[in-house]
Amino acid sequence: MKAQSRQRGRSFLIRLPYGEDLLLTLKRFCEENGITQGVLAVIGAVRRATVGYYDQEAHEYKANSFDQPMEIVSCIGNISLLEGEPFVHAHIVLADKEGRPAAAGHLMEGAIIFAGEAFVQELIGEPLVREFDEQTSLSLWPWLSKG
Amino acid sequence: MKAQSRQRGRSFLIRLPYGEDLLLTLKRFCEENGITQGVLAVIGAVRRATVGYYDQEAHEYKANSFDQPMEIVSCIGNISLLEGEPFVHAHIVLADKEGRPAAAGHLMEGAIIFAGEAFVQELIGEPLVREFDEQTSLSLWPWLSKG
Amino acid sequence: MKAQSRQRGRSFLIRLPYGEDLLLTLKRFCEENGITQGVLAVIGAVRRATVGYYDQEAHEYKANSFDQPMEIVSCIGNISLLEGEPFVHAHIVLADKEGRPAAAGHLMEGAIIFAGEAFVQELIGEPLVREFDEQTSLSLWPWLSKG
Repeated sequence: MKAQSRQRGRSFLIRLPYGEDLLLTLKRFCEENGITQGVLAVIGAVRRATVGYYDQEAHEYKANSFDQPMEIVSCIGNISLLEGEPFVHAHIVLADKEGRPAAAGHLMEGAIIFAGEAFVQELIGEPLVREFDEQTSLSLWPWLSKG
Repeated sequence: MKAQSRQRGRSFLIRLPYGEDLLLTLKRFCEENGITQGVLAVIGAVRRATVGYYDQEAHEYKANSFDQPMEIVSCIGNISLLEGEPFVHAHIVLADKEGRPAAAGHLMEGAIIFAGEAFVQELIGEPLVREFDEQTSLSLWPWLSKG
Repeated sequence: MKAQSRQRGRSFLIRLPYGEDLLLTLKRFCEENGITQGVLAVIGAVRRATVGYYDQEAHEYKANSFDQPMEIVSCIGNISLLEGEPFVHAHIVLADKEGRPAAAGHLMEGAIIFAGEAFVQELIGEPLVREFDEQTSLSLWPWLSKG
């Protein structure tokens, strides 16, 4: 389980645009700035959101939509390559107006930004590429390269 | 949407003081160590907490207080400048004794530390300054500088 | 409250193994790669999980088990030394198939990985060692070294 390490690239703190889709905005940011691997974290608020749950038996995502304003209390994830393009994989947690955690899951299209602040940390190293995994039917990274 | 990148400054792992206010402690840490931009993450536990929800219509924060001990299961955020001083913007998620997510929102004064461990990553670059945004009535960063 | 800073070491993005225990896997990864201090973040999914709540009066952990598949919507934490070995301290938030936050707390053994992606950022500096704290009965870091 000895793993290859990566170098740190550029660091970004960015304001996210009102009214835009959160996932698509993050993906576009990576494309426009040439980021192909890294990690990210977002806080802010959305006007509404859709979150995904991966059914571990059926091997498909179920989308759950929440049509209300909510705080983005956490949204963390990573960037790697899928079919040659930057792919953002992030999970999100949202809270309602009573201060209760109300929704959470895999970030899907449909989360509309009210306000948002993202930290993006680029990493540099051997390309990190997602490929189809038979056991889970997900697109995953290769196993750790030994030594 | 080409963005300016920042350099990484100092990294800190710190124990937070029992009985103190979480938000004020983080702010004081930044002041005393001259940190004007960066990101942070905290885990630990609180004796009680107050979390905020920003009303997207009324344009004001609503405070929700939870008067019970809880785990800090996530608290992530950033540091930038507001009116010339380091400003900590963080969102928090808290869990109760049954292991249920119980409270979440914008970190406000009123979260009293039982135990806490913070990671603070300083960033260095062009000053990152919050200014009033008419659309949301929030203090936000400037839009991405092009190129 | 002037604090010692640390340097950044290696950065890792790793795929976590299906069917293995999350906490033990993270600990083993640190051992096998010689990581004694740092921070980490994980997203993914589990087949089931056990989360801890620290009773602030009784000074003991209560374990809450959730025997259902869930998304790991957040799992953040740190690495330091306890009794000479790398010790992973992480808190986790999990969501159910309806997209609701369902479980959260201190990451204990018993969270079984379905799929997982971890970011590990090594830090380098003066050894960071946990020691028994009388006030909380927890193993905590020393107070900030002044200057």
